[in-house]
Amino acid sequence: MVAELISVGTEILLGNITNTNARYLAEECAALGLSCYTQVTVGDNPGRLEEAVATALSRSDVVILTGGLGPTEDDLTKETVAKVLGLPLVEDPHSRQRIEDYFKKGIHRPPTDNNWKQAMIIEGCQVVDNHNGTAPGLIVTTAGEKQVILLPGPPGELYPMFEEAIRPFLEKLTSQIIYSRTVKIGGMGESYVADQIQDLLENQTNPTIAPYAKIGEVHLRVTARAATKKEAKKLIRPVIRELKKRFGKSIYTTRNEVTLEDKFISLLEKYGLTVTTAESCSGGLLSGRLINVAGASDVINRCFVTYANEAKQDLLGVKNSTLRKYGAVSPQTAREMAKGAARAAKSQVALSVTGIAGPGGGTSEKPVGLVYIGCYVKGHTEVIECHFSGNRQKVREGTVARAIDFGRRCVMKYGK
Amino acid sequence: MVAELISVGTEILLGNITNTNARYLAEECAALGLSCYTQVTVGDNPGRLEEAVATALSRSDVVILTGGLGPTEDDLTKETVAKVLGLPLVEDPHSRQRIEDYFKKGIHRPPTDNNWKQAMIIEGCQVVDNHNGTAPGLIVTTAGEKQVILLPGPPGELYPMFEEAIRPFLEKLTSQIIYSRTVKIGGMGESYVADQIQDLLENQTNPTIAPYAKIGEVHLRVTARAATKKEAKKLIRPVIRELKKRFGKSIYTTRNEVTLEDKFISLLEKYGLTVTTAESCSGGLLSGRLINVAGASDVINRCFVTYANEAKQDLLGVKNSTLRKYGAVSPQTAREMAKGAARAAKSQVALSVTGIAGPGGGTSEKPVGLVYIGCYVKGHTEVIECHFSGNRQKVREGTVARAIDFGRRCVMKYGK
Repeated sequence: MVAELISVGTEILLGNITNTNARYLAEECAALGLSCYTQVTVGDNPGRLEEAVATALSRSDVVILTGGLGPTEDDLTKETVAKVLGLPLVEDPHSRQRIEDYFKKGIHRPPTDNNWKQAMIIEGCQVVDNHNGTAPGLIVTTAGEKQVILLPGPPGELYPMFEEAIRPFLEKLTSQIIYSRTVKIGGMGESYVADQIQDLLENQTNPTIAPYAKIGEVHLRVTARAATKKEAKKLIRPVIRELKKRFGKSIYTTRNEVTLEDKFISLLEKYGLTVTTAESCSGGLLSGRLINVAGASDVINRCFVTYANEAKQDLLGVKNSTLRKYGAVSPQTAREMAKGAARAAKSQVALSVTGIAGPGGGTSEKPVGLVYIGCYVKGHTEVIECHFSGNRQKVREGTVARAIDFGRRCVMKYGK
Repeated sequence: MVAELISVGTEILLGNITNTNARYLAEECAALGLSCYTQVTVGDNPGRLEEAVATALSRSDVVILTGGLGPTEDDLTKETVAKVLGLPLVEDPHSRQRIEDYFKKGIHRPPTDNNWKQAMIIEGCQVVDNHNGTAPGLIVTTAGEKQVILLPGPPGELYPMFEEAIRPFLEKLTSQIIYSRTVKIGGMGESYVADQIQDLLENQTNPTIAPYAKIGEVHLRVTARAATKKEAKKLIRPVIRELKKRFGKSIYTTRNEVTLEDKFISLLEKYGLTVTTAESCSGGLLSGRLINVAGASDVINRCFVTYANEAKQDLLGVKNSTLRKYGAVSPQTAREMAKGAARAAKSQVALSVTGIAGPGGGTSEKPVGLVYIGCYVKGHTEVIECHFSGNRQKVREGTVARAIDFGRRCVMKYGK
């Protein structure tokens, strides 16, 4: 069953507001097993809105419109849908009563003449009460058994109305559910990952695999459609198994809600380890991201931002000779930073970062984007050399993601 | 001149992400005087994408597509546009070279076969270099003098590319210059700011003032349209003057490219001061944001993340009695943290943060969202109490913005 979303509103076309309603409804439709192939945004213009509604009806089974149900002259979603369907608008006494009550209770002034416009409904439709405003929602079943659903634009009215009345209506209609899991891969690029599963991506139908590039990670969203959740899970299981076979330890989770830092922190908790960080170019973003995990306080006591060489010596005990001989951006310095941070914080695990985030400061030997990440775990220290591209912000964000994934791998290796 | 936006991406149709690109481009088009009547979102489906492109070309002069320029099989925006226009795809040696360089410099592994797909362009198009990724942008002028513009989907690639190349191209096309300045206000809420300029917001035509709520700041974008930059600047000047009169020192800049942290760092440089931070709940995000300023190394030597009480005592010298009597989240602790950090880092300025970011840990007396920010400047210490709403991430981001603005105000007061 195909659904189409039409957002009506000049404020969206002008870029004054972000269309968050469309995201909400799209997600709801997907969860209900409705295929959503098109989203359209049009303004309060009768001709263009008419065209959008007619086109949507020609290719979709369910058309959901949001916005344009207000009391003013330029709100004309109802009028336009009625015209396309060849149905008249009639006054709904129940809705008129509700509007009267709403003004009596909530606004303490009589409705203006144009408020009564909101009591007009499309003949034969199902009226959905609005508990947070004056515009009722409408569900119109067309002669061809298609559904046209008109909903108010303000999210504070739309979301509760959808949850109370529209979702139950659509569930009955589809008798289908959608289920998805996300296979999250750390430390690999999108094109590399896609390359490894070329055969799986080709000609896929149900379940589907969709790759998403994140900073320092790739997410593979595996989605199945079935009559029940159990069946959908059964469809997904062999795909997850296959992905695990191909990516092994690079997969840090298959749960939608778990982040890379969640995984790292929970791994430390599991092994009873504490962690610290010593950051140069990332300047605190690494510890900041780790401490974003609720409950990080169990494994983090303190972290160090050692931007200057002097700070690396004072706080971490990096040797002056190391800094002089190899420079601050070197594997040797990264190694001493990690070891020194673990010692200074009395932690079993330490991550260190030293690099050239740019824009200036690079040389041909040590270009902008060169970053060394050190990881100390219970007496073992490893260092990786990374090269990031993009601006200062991108280099630093990439560094942080890479450091957490590197930490995760080292803890798996030495942390037990 | 009519523009139409086509967003390509299954992740938008599935509701996985909010289409913020459409808002950005819609706003840019409006500023350029392009009328945008329709926005369409379609997935990576050749048939439906073809229909969307053909329809857009039948009714609009400029069609801007975002997304679907990636290296994978299901990225087919270029292929589809080429098909609709009846033009072949050809390899662009320049783009191929850029991709090769990008991998050499940034990724340190050879590109995979499908990366070369991104070097394919539509014959006769204008290629726009991507400085933040591998997919170049394309501008195709059709036989009917319409413009089809293909841009990458990731905002980190799209926004800079639009600013560098697409906006100037569209300015030439519309022979109108758009000039805007942004009055940036720290430490005030959006509704308060809007309230202060209600009279200016009503009935504005040219220039216009558009308020944007940012984390811990409000930006007022003043935009003028004129035939020349000089004329536009002349239109803007009295508006900026009026806003300065109304918001005084709360305005930290009127330059689009200057961020709050830029301003703070440059203020420190101007007065010859160095700064350090001592963070509890923000966990390094404050130092991370300050160090994101290129050249921060002139004023920052080291920073402290003191998440546990023990760390606050060890590294900052916060008194055990203070922690016991008032708790870690208290103005007294914030004060000692700021003073102690300044002493430990030998800095003239120090910012401290201690608060309850949630989700748990709040009490009726000290609820989630309560944060104390301390600022030490040359012997003076001030502490403010803040209350933030939202989840852990939002509380922490709000804290960081507020701390930088507070630091800016304290340095202006005591730093000279």
